[in-house]
Amino acid sequence: MTIKKLVHTPDGVRDIYGTEMQRKLTVESKLKETIYSYGFSDIETPTFEYFDVFSKEIGTTSSKELYKFFDNYGDTLCLRPDFTPSVARSVSKYFADEVRPIKLTYMGNTFVNYSELQGKLKEVTQIGVELMNDASFTADAEIINLCIDSLKSLGLKNFQVSLGHMDYFKGLCESAGIDEEKEYELRELIQKKNSFSAEALLDTLHVNDKCKDLLLKTGDTLGDISVILNLKERVVNEKSKAALERLISVYETLKIYGNEEYVSFDLGMLSKYNYYTGIIFKAFTYGVGDAVVKGGRYDTLLSHFGSSKPAIGFVMVVDDLLMALRGQDIPVSVKGDSEVIYFTDDDLKEKIEEAVKLRKSGKRISLERK
Amino acid sequence: MTIKKLVHTPDGVRDIYGTEMQRKLTVESKLKETIYSYGFSDIETPTFEYFDVFSKEIGTTSSKELYKFFDNYGDTLCLRPDFTPSVARSVSKYFADEVRPIKLTYMGNTFVNYSELQGKLKEVTQIGVELMNDASFTADAEIINLCIDSLKSLGLKNFQVSLGHMDYFKGLCESAGIDEEKEYELRELIQKKNSFSAEALLDTLHVNDKCKDLLLKTGDTLGDISVILNLKERVVNEKSKAALERLISVYETLKIYGNEEYVSFDLGMLSKYNYYTGIIFKAFTYGVGDAVVKGGRYDTLLSHFGSSKPAIGFVMVVDDLLMALRGQDIPVSVKGDSEVIYFTDDDLKEKIEEAVKLRKSGKRISLERK
Repeated sequence: MTIKKLVHTPDGVRDIYGTEMQRKLTVESKLKETIYSYGFSDIETPTFEYFDVFSKEIGTTSSKELYKFFDNYGDTLCLRPDFTPSVARSVSKYFADEVRPIKLTYMGNTFVNYSELQGKLKEVTQIGVELMNDASFTADAEIINLCIDSLKSLGLKNFQVSLGHMDYFKGLCESAGIDEEKEYELRELIQKKNSFSAEALLDTLHVNDKCKDLLLKTGDTLGDISVILNLKERVVNEKSKAALERLISVYETLKIYGNEEYVSFDLGMLSKYNYYTGIIFKAFTYGVGDAVVKGGRYDTLLSHFGSSKPAIGFVMVVDDLLMALRGQDIPVSVKGDSEVIYFTDDDLKEKIEEAVKLRKSGKRISLERK
Repeated sequence: MTIKKLVHTPDGVRDIYGTEMQRKLTVESKLKETIYSYGFSDIETPTFEYFDVFSKEIGTTSSKELYKFFDNYGDTLCLRPDFTPSVARSVSKYFADEVRPIKLTYMGNTFVNYSELQGKLKEVTQIGVELMNDASFTADAEIINLCIDSLKSLGLKNFQVSLGHMDYFKGLCESAGIDEEKEYELRELIQKKNSFSAEALLDTLHVNDKCKDLLLKTGDTLGDISVILNLKERVVNEKSKAALERLISVYETLKIYGNEEYVSFDLGMLSKYNYYTGIIFKAFTYGVGDAVVKGGRYDTLLSHFGSSKPAIGFVMVVDDLLMALRGQDIPVSVKGDSEVIYFTDDDLKEKIEEAVKLRKSGKRISLERK
């Protein structure tokens, strides 16, 4: 390899240093402090796992976007594309008998081998939380409130957390007699805002008009709490109704926290991660195309690892948050440069003694030859 | 894969949580604070690099112990086995024109695919420093002193930093007319304490008695500064003499810092990393078989990346330091558990308001359903 090529990082990954690095550390530390204030404690999982931890059944990143390699036994390993399956695995192993709430936070890098065309970073730093063993609406509210407080701790003001619920759409499909395969097909069409094909599909399935209307409108069902309250009067199936009631309870709880102004609703939001089961949410802000926070409830994920615990969590991508802060001109405090003490061979002793004293007092001192 | 297997991490890597995780974070934070007090600032490099960054010519981990995989262009990538080549690459790219000292610190995980028999961790957390653009003995002393202060910051008292110098042995070989290939062979034998074979080799090379004596004794040349001072009177070749004088200057400087008691000398210490050129050092303490700190000068490494800067650095393995602290019963402060506030549906509002207030005051509060 030529030296010219050798100084470069591989495609999609990068070096971070100087002010950008200091900004990153500040953001990480503020997010962690906020998360700790909610009683979460740290967990670290390995950078790579058995491939099956991120398999199709568990429903995260597609296999061709995973970085894969082999261990000495011929088993396939892969770099983690996200933390949630790893934390679920670890909790299933070490906390299987715990019945009280488990509150874990992680920070580390994740790896997705996007095709070149997208220009996305392939290695990013994620910070996230997972709350296990609490299936209640208050757990949902606590987690969403933590998401809001995390963003506020960075100085972000203009952001929205969109809430959805997997069961709203699922309930409509069930009551219309749509099977899982067709449900998936319909979900794809609605997410792509392709309402012509969605309507054609519903016609072939002989779905009644009221149900068809609700299903087709799912993609546009977004707004403030009034949208949810109105819809609750119209929906008759139990599952969808329960989903709407859950969203209302969560909203009422967020009002107690005083953070309801950051929340809106989007029933057409359906995650690509198959492991979500209940409430799902995403936070959006200016300067970043994608959501800066993604989260939701995944009550069945742990059963893949032989455990059975309800769970909810979210993840924030530090690199995206840095981009948002830069785009919105929100200052990020960084520690200043260290003080330099210059020495020569003649005053070496005296300058070293000065540096030792200042360092002990908490100063950051760079000793440099004049 | 069975669930029983799926909950396990791959061989040689692990989950860390609970008290052990908190101890790890405390150790990391203490080490970083000490490093910052010397005026170093952070750099992050990618978790994987082009394979050639760690190639044989650069002289780090052997190819078969690297985790290798391919990018979308068919280039070979590998997980970093250590940081120094990555930082050298990055500095060559971004700091090529900088002439003042460059002081960088990194923290992150490294990966070596040891054969199963050794039972070593394959993923560990490393913290290290690199000081570029300063070739002087004061830079050597500053770095070694930082190593000592780092270990002291953790509460370690019983440790020794062994100093050696690549040029002492090299100078003896040169003056004896031993070529590089035979020098390497001799180095291996001396490191393995195989003095019979070493002597036989020197006999075939017709090395004179005085030189032979010094070479054979290299492996046993260890002790305090008096060993170096005595040897200086006996050695005649310029390169070895300069190496000994360098060690004496470094020692004198460490006396100004008041840390000379932690230092000893070992001229038989020769690193397996081929990139070291001048002073090399290792720190040893009880409870860990291997050195807990490894460092040295590598004035030619950056030239592999098209740059030319003298450099010195060291690396500490956090996992090993944790083991040493545990083995020596040295306490590591951890933050206590968070306070729990229990609520029911009846007092939800009042308990949330209490939690919000306490969190704002800096307390860590876990809200849990009674």
